Amino acid sequence: MKRLICMMLLGAGLSSFGIGDLQPLENWEPVASGVWKVQIGETDRELAYTDMAARPPRLDALNALPDVPFPFSESPIEFHRSDERMVQVHIPTKSDEVIYGFGLQLDGIKKSGKVLNLNVDHWAKGGGRTHAPVPFYISSRGYGVFFNTARYLKVHVQVGNRKDSPNLPDPVDRNPPPEEPAPGPWKALPDSDAVEANVRAAGLEMIVFSGKSLQDIVARYNLYCGGGVLPPLWGLGFWHRVPSDFNAAQSQSEVTAFARHRIPLDVLGLEPGWMTRSYPCTFEWQKYRFSDPAAFTQRMLDQGIRLNLWENPFVSPEGTLYKKLYPLSGSHLVWLGLVPDYTLPEAQEILCTQHANEHLSIGVSGYKIDEVDGYDRWLWPDHATFPSGTPAEAMRQAYGLIMQNMLYKDLFHKNNTRTYSLVRSSNGGASGLPFVLYSDSYQHSEYITGVSAASLGGILWTPEVRQAGSPEEWRARIQTVCFSPLAMLNAWSSKTKPWEYESVTDDVRSVIQLRMRLLPYLYTAFADYNRKGIPPMRAMVLEQGVGPVKTRDAAAKLDGVTNPYAESVELEQNDQFMFGPSILVAPYYEKNLLKRNITLPKGNWYDFYTGEFVGNGTTIEVATPERIPLFVKEGAVIPMLTKSIDNSRDAYGHPLEVRHYGKQPGSFELYEDDGKTFDYEKGDYALRTFSFADGKLTQKRIRPGVPLFGEVERWMEMTK
Amino acid sequence: MKRLICMMLLGAGLSSFGIGDLQPLENWEPVASGVWKVQIGETDRELAYTDMAARPPRLDALNALPDVPFPFSESPIEFHRSDERMVQVHIPTKSDEVIYGFGLQLDGIKKSGKVLNLNVDHWAKGGGRTHAPVPFYISSRGYGVFFNTARYLKVHVQVGNRKDSPNLPDPVDRNPPPEEPAPGPWKALPDSDAVEANVRAAGLEMIVFSGKSLQDIVARYNLYCGGGVLPPLWGLGFWHRVPSDFNAAQSQSEVTAFARHRIPLDVLGLEPGWMTRSYPCTFEWQKYRFSDPAAFTQRMLDQGIRLNLWENPFVSPEGTLYKKLYPLSGSHLVWLGLVPDYTLPEAQEILCTQHANEHLSIGVSGYKIDEVDGYDRWLWPDHATFPSGTPAEAMRQAYGLIMQNMLYKDLFHKNNTRTYSLVRSSNGGASGLPFVLYSDSYQHSEYITGVSAASLGGILWTPEVRQAGSPEEWRARIQTVCFSPLAMLNAWSSKTKPWEYESVTDDVRSVIQLRMRLLPYLYTAFADYNRKGIPPMRAMVLEQGVGPVKTRDAAAKLDGVTNPYAESVELEQNDQFMFGPSILVAPYYEKNLLKRNITLPKGNWYDFYTGEFVGNGTTIEVATPERIPLFVKEGAVIPMLTKSIDNSRDAYGHPLEVRHYGKQPGSFELYEDDGKTFDYEKGDYALRTFSFADGKLTQKRIRPGVPLFGEVERWMEMTK
Repeated sequence: MKRLICMMLLGAGLSSFGIGDLQPLENWEPVASGVWKVQIGETDRELAYTDMAARPPRLDALNALPDVPFPFSESPIEFHRSDERMVQVHIPTKSDEVIYGFGLQLDGIKKSGKVLNLNVDHWAKGGGRTHAPVPFYISSRGYGVFFNTARYLKVHVQVGNRKDSPNLPDPVDRNPPPEEPAPGPWKALPDSDAVEANVRAAGLEMIVFSGKSLQDIVARYNLYCGGGVLPPLWGLGFWHRVPSDFNAAQSQSEVTAFARHRIPLDVLGLEPGWMTRSYPCTFEWQKYRFSDPAAFTQRMLDQGIRLNLWENPFVSPEGTLYKKLYPLSGSHLVWLGLVPDYTLPEAQEILCTQHANEHLSIGVSGYKIDEVDGYDRWLWPDHATFPSGTPAEAMRQAYGLIMQNMLYKDLFHKNNTRTYSLVRSSNGGASGLPFVLYSDSYQHSEYITGVSAASLGGILWTPEVRQAGSPEEWRARIQTVCFSPLAMLNAWSSKTKPWEYESVTDDVRSVIQLRMRLLPYLYTAFADYNRKGIPPMRAMVLEQGVGPVKTRDAAAKLDGVTNPYAESVELEQNDQFMFGPSILVAPYYEKNLLKRNITLPKGNWYDFYTGEFVGNGTTIEVATPERIPLFVKEGAVIPMLTKSIDNSRDAYGHPLEVRHYGKQPGSFELYEDDGKTFDYEKGDYALRTFSFADGKLTQKRIRPGVPLFGEVERWMEMTK
Repeated sequence: MKRLICMMLLGAGLSSFGIGDLQPLENWEPVASGVWKVQIGETDRELAYTDMAARPPRLDALNALPDVPFPFSESPIEFHRSDERMVQVHIPTKSDEVIYGFGLQLDGIKKSGKVLNLNVDHWAKGGGRTHAPVPFYISSRGYGVFFNTARYLKVHVQVGNRKDSPNLPDPVDRNPPPEEPAPGPWKALPDSDAVEANVRAAGLEMIVFSGKSLQDIVARYNLYCGGGVLPPLWGLGFWHRVPSDFNAAQSQSEVTAFARHRIPLDVLGLEPGWMTRSYPCTFEWQKYRFSDPAAFTQRMLDQGIRLNLWENPFVSPEGTLYKKLYPLSGSHLVWLGLVPDYTLPEAQEILCTQHANEHLSIGVSGYKIDEVDGYDRWLWPDHATFPSGTPAEAMRQAYGLIMQNMLYKDLFHKNNTRTYSLVRSSNGGASGLPFVLYSDSYQHSEYITGVSAASLGGILWTPEVRQAGSPEEWRARIQTVCFSPLAMLNAWSSKTKPWEYESVTDDVRSVIQLRMRLLPYLYTAFADYNRKGIPPMRAMVLEQGVGPVKTRDAAAKLDGVTNPYAESVELEQNDQFMFGPSILVAPYYEKNLLKRNITLPKGNWYDFYTGEFVGNGTTIEVATPERIPLFVKEGAVIPMLTKSIDNSRDAYGHPLEVRHYGKQPGSFELYEDDGKTFDYEKGDYALRTFSFADGKLTQKRIRPGVPLFGEVERWMEMTK
């Protein structure tokens, strides 16, 4: 061995591999207020996530935000490129700093002390492999970092110590003798002073965000990715996916049964049985089950029901698209179906034309794009080749995004029809794409965590309901999903119905009805996502309030007093989240099915249902499992429908109830448009404000336009 | 996106990425009988595992074996190199082919249908990440494939289908309507026709092995890696590791207690407390616990006890080696200790000189090299840099090997002193290195599987005992470890003793004594590993017997009759294994603690203890948990000591009992040497045969030399 190694030393050159080889990243380019980017090496631009975003950066909205300083002026980010075709970056962190994010991590949002392989995959607990491993994180010190590359990113989040670090802790003997005790406890993970990451690529684009608060940082990320999605109004109603083998008659019966049980319904999802062949797919209607798809779809639309079609992207040799897509697909098959290279315009054209002609033209409203995530044994290997030359790894990371981008732009946007759809993988830059993530996993606490985790990375997540072990679990899961981005029962395999457990059916109906009544509030929350980048549902850490958290000490005090959320900087608080601007949601789940604790941030909080004051910066216990615990911020104004409706059609022109909570004045800016087209992008939307002050409501139309909802029928001071 | 993609298409060139880009691997170079190699691209030779082997290929021994044809003459292996710095290979397989191997895979030896990331790591069930992910596999069709590179290898083992494959199965609709039923069951993993693998490197060396049987293929692999290790005789005795905080007096008490309980003991292992600082390490004696290491070591040697010292490679700033090794270590620390670049001769020199002066010179006999495996959060990142220029990935894959190679060559071999030591990671080419693997995991069934798995990849594994939940589990675990390469109780944390459970102490003592009595048989089994490449303990699949298994059909019939091991081609049989040439071991474990089934291969088998015939190609049940089930092949001859001994010293000159089982004649070639030096490499060893025929034993000395063991005192026909 020695001789060879000596030769190697001569060949490689010691100097080029020393530890002094990190170079400061200079040339940060200010892109917009609070946004800077830099390019290391040569990036393959087609692999940048932002190229798959729904829209270009919202520079106007960003530049309307206050200026903030570049967060790495004092301690620069450093980098190194090796001849192994690897780029590494070293991002300094302070000892009191906490890192959150990296996409849909269902095991928690705090990532300090972890090593993550950010690879698209079925959910694999703890290692970073997930349906949406968004390479974006935020720091408790008030900045965000985005790796804009569809590569497998490996990140050491405050794990590891460089030997030339000026901040090295003193080692501690792990087995000291009694005569010479150690100065402190030995740590399996010594304190680190950096986030380090690497990609195997010739280059890397990094984007840094700053802001006035953690929420502001996330909002700027979303705006940089084109803003958040604004779903059609029907997308925010209740969804139901029928069993895989249902035919037209069975599907109609299901809709009728919903009406009979007075359970709201807006979207019916058809699972693989609607197709002539699935796994792999033809995308063509199965005539044995749906003899007249156009008539069926129209009949559904007549009842206010939108159809969502399941598909996976892998093309069956028994379908008409196969021959055309064969030369435009990758070297490997998935379930013996082609993997089209949808980075190619001609491949996009083939699928979108078929979808437009056979689905959209007859009134289909959306898709569920399944199986774009993994596992390794299901998808293509990393050595697969694609006709565009896109590396297999990038295809794996971005396939879900590519599908979303294609269907959004070339099918729905092109036809000026909004969709709200489902997808099982996503990644960076996705905030504007009208797709919601879901999983095959099914742990309720993880599903609740998903709502928080998704909010940190520009993605949306549905904790869909499939089945339950008890009536109480059933009720709690439906309560959770009704306060998520997409309220869905997915009975594809379980064959469940909302009235599965008679003992809780009234509670189930109530919470779905409450979601319907909240449509005005919820639709505006999404408009704020679209226009301001503020996620409609949010992790509690985004509610820190006054300015970015600079240190744990700072977090411990807000306005000079103890901050109850100091704990959330260190401990996670993923079983409660924010819904829209002012409602805190704390679902019942698992061991907390009948009673649970809730930590209220600083400020006065009120019970949503009764208006009563419940606490300020305290932990309270609730035990009212028949309804989901909801708490409202001091001064909040909440517009609702006066009555429950069974379908979002009935929201149009429906009179409003406007509620005010607490003692302080407050206001709400209601967003309205046609609820279904992209005309709002041309300015066709209306805004009106509801302001409560001195015990009275003032409505002001600040932007004219056709209103979606009706007039205010009643206003309510909820807090006496 | 479209514009960018069009540009990319022009830039990359469609043609160079088409699916027709696999090229046949030609230029296979015959290296020895049954061994061919080929190089793809430019390999970095310092990363080849064979360069870290104990010895160069045993070409003489290989060329003495029968010629066999190259297994890929009809269907060539193909390859492709991409400008992404990736090499992929495509190795055709037949539909009836089964793949085994890839190193220490504790979840089973059959790997068909799996995707493996062959990365050195703590054991991670199912994904390929393990302490010794040897990139070598064998096929039921009679060949082996070795990827001779210290890279992360990703292998799709008969998973995946290329779209240009001539063997594609017809897709099956997963959701057929009743009117059009599917022709067969839908498969989540469609039948594949290849093993595909990739590395991210500029090149790759592959070596193909063939042979007359699966055992012969493995033997040729081991011979190519320099042959198997021959441990010192003491290494095959019983080992005990004392609690971490034990001092010299406590260690001596433990040795005394072993003698008092009449439990054999050859090796005492000291855990981290022997060092002044550990995690990271100084390698220097902790004087508070061991005030006179030389006297202590000598006192142990005087009692026949060898010392084994725990260490991990990470260098504490509080030790004398730190300053010298600082410039010769990598960019990152582990537990705040340096990671020396031991591919550098000057770094090797520093450690070996210290070890020679402070350990070897006073009589220390070996090491336990801990923590060379992972996890990611403990070791260095893939972007770490090392002064030799060796990539961090290769350092991760090979660090355990590099340590083994260095200590073997530059410490022990250089001083003509054999060692038998422990290590927690290994990899390809390791068969000649005197180190045995162990793990932090502790599932008994996995530990038994480890014995089989290790035998397929030139590594040794100890299912060490630490604690148990019941006396019966305790006994069963000690029985298992006594029939493994290294019989050890590791009480570093559990503080257990062999006499932990009084109710089974007699059984525990018996099985340890049986191991001692079997030393002549066992030592020869290791000599066969050394000289012929035959693993001393072996997976049952290596016992197929007559020639390589060509197909499942062929496996189903051996000599024209049904082969009970046909099942083991499809199902795994990892809870029984071969020990030496003729003993089948079937430990009790977990749900089979008091009774279990055993599948006997074709041929007559006899109870080891009684000599009774037990079966031929049948499954039998045993329920004698007080002793480990052992079965002996027809005609086998087994040399043993006449009596049990408490220390391997007493084996020297000890009289022999030679047993014969069954009705057929048989013989045994006993290997003997000094049991402790490398003089055998210069020819200083003896051979004698014991032959049973017509009811009488003949002893023949076929190679003169000083015998290790004594004369035959009795021979026994075990089968009446």
